[in-house]
Amino acid sequence: MTQKPSIPKGTRDFGRLEMAERNYIFDTIRSVFRSFGYSQIETPAMENLSTLLGKYGEEGDKLLFRILNSGDAFASVDPSKPLVSQVCEKGLRYDLTVPFARYVVQHRDEISFPFKRFQMQPVWRADRPQKGRYREFYQCDVDVIGSTSQLCELELVQIVDEVYRRLGINVLVKINNRKVLSGLAEICGAPDKVVDITVAIDKLDKIGLDAVKEELLSKGLSSEAIALLEPILNLKGSFEEKIAVMRQLMASSAVGLKGLDELEELFGFISEAGITTPCEIDLSLARGLNYYTGAIFEVKALDWEIGSISGGGRYDNLTGIFGLADMSGVGISFGADRIYDVLKGLGKFPAGLGSASQLLFANMGETAYILPVAAALRSAGVSVEIYPDASKLKKQFDYADRKGIPFLSICGETEAASGLIQIKNLASGEQRSFPKDDLAAILDFLS
Amino acid sequence: MTQKPSIPKGTRDFGRLEMAERNYIFDTIRSVFRSFGYSQIETPAMENLSTLLGKYGEEGDKLLFRILNSGDAFASVDPSKPLVSQVCEKGLRYDLTVPFARYVVQHRDEISFPFKRFQMQPVWRADRPQKGRYREFYQCDVDVIGSTSQLCELELVQIVDEVYRRLGINVLVKINNRKVLSGLAEICGAPDKVVDITVAIDKLDKIGLDAVKEELLSKGLSSEAIALLEPILNLKGSFEEKIAVMRQLMASSAVGLKGLDELEELFGFISEAGITTPCEIDLSLARGLNYYTGAIFEVKALDWEIGSISGGGRYDNLTGIFGLADMSGVGISFGADRIYDVLKGLGKFPAGLGSASQLLFANMGETAYILPVAAALRSAGVSVEIYPDASKLKKQFDYADRKGIPFLSICGETEAASGLIQIKNLASGEQRSFPKDDLAAILDFLS
Repeated sequence: MTQKPSIPKGTRDFGRLEMAERNYIFDTIRSVFRSFGYSQIETPAMENLSTLLGKYGEEGDKLLFRILNSGDAFASVDPSKPLVSQVCEKGLRYDLTVPFARYVVQHRDEISFPFKRFQMQPVWRADRPQKGRYREFYQCDVDVIGSTSQLCELELVQIVDEVYRRLGINVLVKINNRKVLSGLAEICGAPDKVVDITVAIDKLDKIGLDAVKEELLSKGLSSEAIALLEPILNLKGSFEEKIAVMRQLMASSAVGLKGLDELEELFGFISEAGITTPCEIDLSLARGLNYYTGAIFEVKALDWEIGSISGGGRYDNLTGIFGLADMSGVGISFGADRIYDVLKGLGKFPAGLGSASQLLFANMGETAYILPVAAALRSAGVSVEIYPDASKLKKQFDYADRKGIPFLSICGETEAASGLIQIKNLASGEQRSFPKDDLAAILDFLS
Repeated sequence: MTQKPSIPKGTRDFGRLEMAERNYIFDTIRSVFRSFGYSQIETPAMENLSTLLGKYGEEGDKLLFRILNSGDAFASVDPSKPLVSQVCEKGLRYDLTVPFARYVVQHRDEISFPFKRFQMQPVWRADRPQKGRYREFYQCDVDVIGSTSQLCELELVQIVDEVYRRLGINVLVKINNRKVLSGLAEICGAPDKVVDITVAIDKLDKIGLDAVKEELLSKGLSSEAIALLEPILNLKGSFEEKIAVMRQLMASSAVGLKGLDELEELFGFISEAGITTPCEIDLSLARGLNYYTGAIFEVKALDWEIGSISGGGRYDNLTGIFGLADMSGVGISFGADRIYDVLKGLGKFPAGLGSASQLLFANMGETAYILPVAAALRSAGVSVEIYPDASKLKKQFDYADRKGIPFLSICGETEAASGLIQIKNLASGEQRSFPKDDLAAILDFLS
């Protein structure tokens, strides 16, 4: 039987080179997370549907991949009732946030709070696949839960700063605060219109002041309220100047002032920590407005046109739905696929990532001679291959070339008889011979 | 709404410490794979059911986790036909071997053969969960496909040798060859009884020679055939002596002699490569007899009672089912969960794996003083945390203790005023002060 093989739409295979490039991103992020004392955890790919349903809105529920119960799922269904809920109890995780909240509540007695964790695992969404949108993709989330200190927010900004410095991507960190937005809505006498106001502010650059005012009117804000907002719509100047304008405007809103305090404290820390990545207040940042309660972050690549490449914020009640109240946390997520696209677009991947080995020993039949040398080089930390078959040299050369192996050693009878190891640098063409025991000289040539 | 959170049975959360221990295993294995020039690939968690069904036997088909089609899966079903096949087109991967075969066929034009790949990903099986058996678990597979050279087999033995040397586990590598087993069945005139013969040989130690002979009789082998097998049942002595006995016995079986040639060549390479892990022929090794066509491997931990911790073999026609014939490959799989149990049982995990950071700065409110020092230490490669809240010192101490952070720095007003950094080694109790710019001295104390 012959089948034409394929994979489900919206999913991907990652081959040798792509995998090396992706690992470069994951390794960089992981190593920065660790340098700040974050610990990795993993949760199962499958969660109970009761854990997942209702957490991502109606649209999100539809995008969950459901797993058919094992055994004969249809054996005892009641055909008069909806089948889906009778035959599926599990689903694939949709993000890392809800499983993290579930994890914290389930393991609260084992966890030392504040709990600093990161998680790098795939998630699955039954979205319509399109360019840059997949049904399986990795998320890299870092969160600290159990502290309300703005030092947590700072740490996330430091992590962003360091990750993109190491990756060589110039970024801008945009920071907003949900409490400030609530304050704005409050002083407008429209506390339920936070989203409308934020979305309108966001359109300022595109449609201009008058159109924004019109939009706010159409959303039901009074002319007086809009007049009050005008200083915000015209907000200019340094961080301090902006804060001063807002403080004055929001003098009557306790929550708004609290938000400004948080922003000021965070920017103070950013300056104390010597962060060089530009960070700015952006009141139009509406990301995750439904669950964020404090800081909101978004990171933009400066030299490549793409959506945000990291984002996050503070949530005060993430674990409440699982029965654990008053657990404030703040987190940020790195979008591996978009970071990949930026690095590819800017040509910023380090050279030689794709080469699996440093040295290929061609197979001339002299295995007894080569095997111990190869083993010694591996012990010294060099990746070494021996071509398995005594094929034509052309074929073995091609193999090294296609795999991007930079050095080739051809040792036949002559070399074996003379105790030499001949190595060629395939890029420069330089070829040298070494006594087979002179490991130091060989290592030097290979490095 | 309050939900009591839980995860599906047979699945696991991995917390901070367990994750660090598992990463130690994965990192070790990965690094050895890479030193031999194997490249990592990843395939999607979901495969089309057409790829998976029929590859693992009837029992395996039942153990596949099926994913409900997205959208309204039940919208247009024909209730008179089996529902499962109408509402599920995708399943979770059951192992890494079939997706690898699918990958090789699908991407054959991009691959340079011989293709040396490794893959470390979870797989899912709807098995009844029990101690040591999970519904989601990682497999670590390394394979080379596109060469029939015994150097490939050697490389896998070298990898086993190096992985377990690094992990500090003493192992025995058992090696068999499917062709030798076929040869035995052939000389018995019972070529269809390979499995029966192998299973009977396997029982020799437990039930004794006479009972084994009886079992072979009951399986339909003639007394003459059993008499022919007797030298095998009494096989003793060195590798060379065993081979000599078998050569004589199997003089009339071409396939048997081919198997012996392969074994001899492999053991010759093992000796040339200077492998120190004990390797022995074990004709009772019946692992994966259905698809292996040459070498069969199994690795046993010598100092801990557990099943095999690695295993694999050569398969000549893995990709045939996907339309690519004559692709011989050989691979071995490392069982991360069992390796974990052995390391735990023998107490062989390195100390300090669980500690996320090297140093905790207690929070005494002097952030402006501490933040730049912490940043400098991180740049020098040290994992550093700052406790986010200015809580009571006892609480901050406890945090360091529970997270296993070995060093604590308490810098209050006095230190900030004098430009000093005070650090305490929590294990030894030793406490020292350093000028805040004397990074070298601090690093020395922390190391």
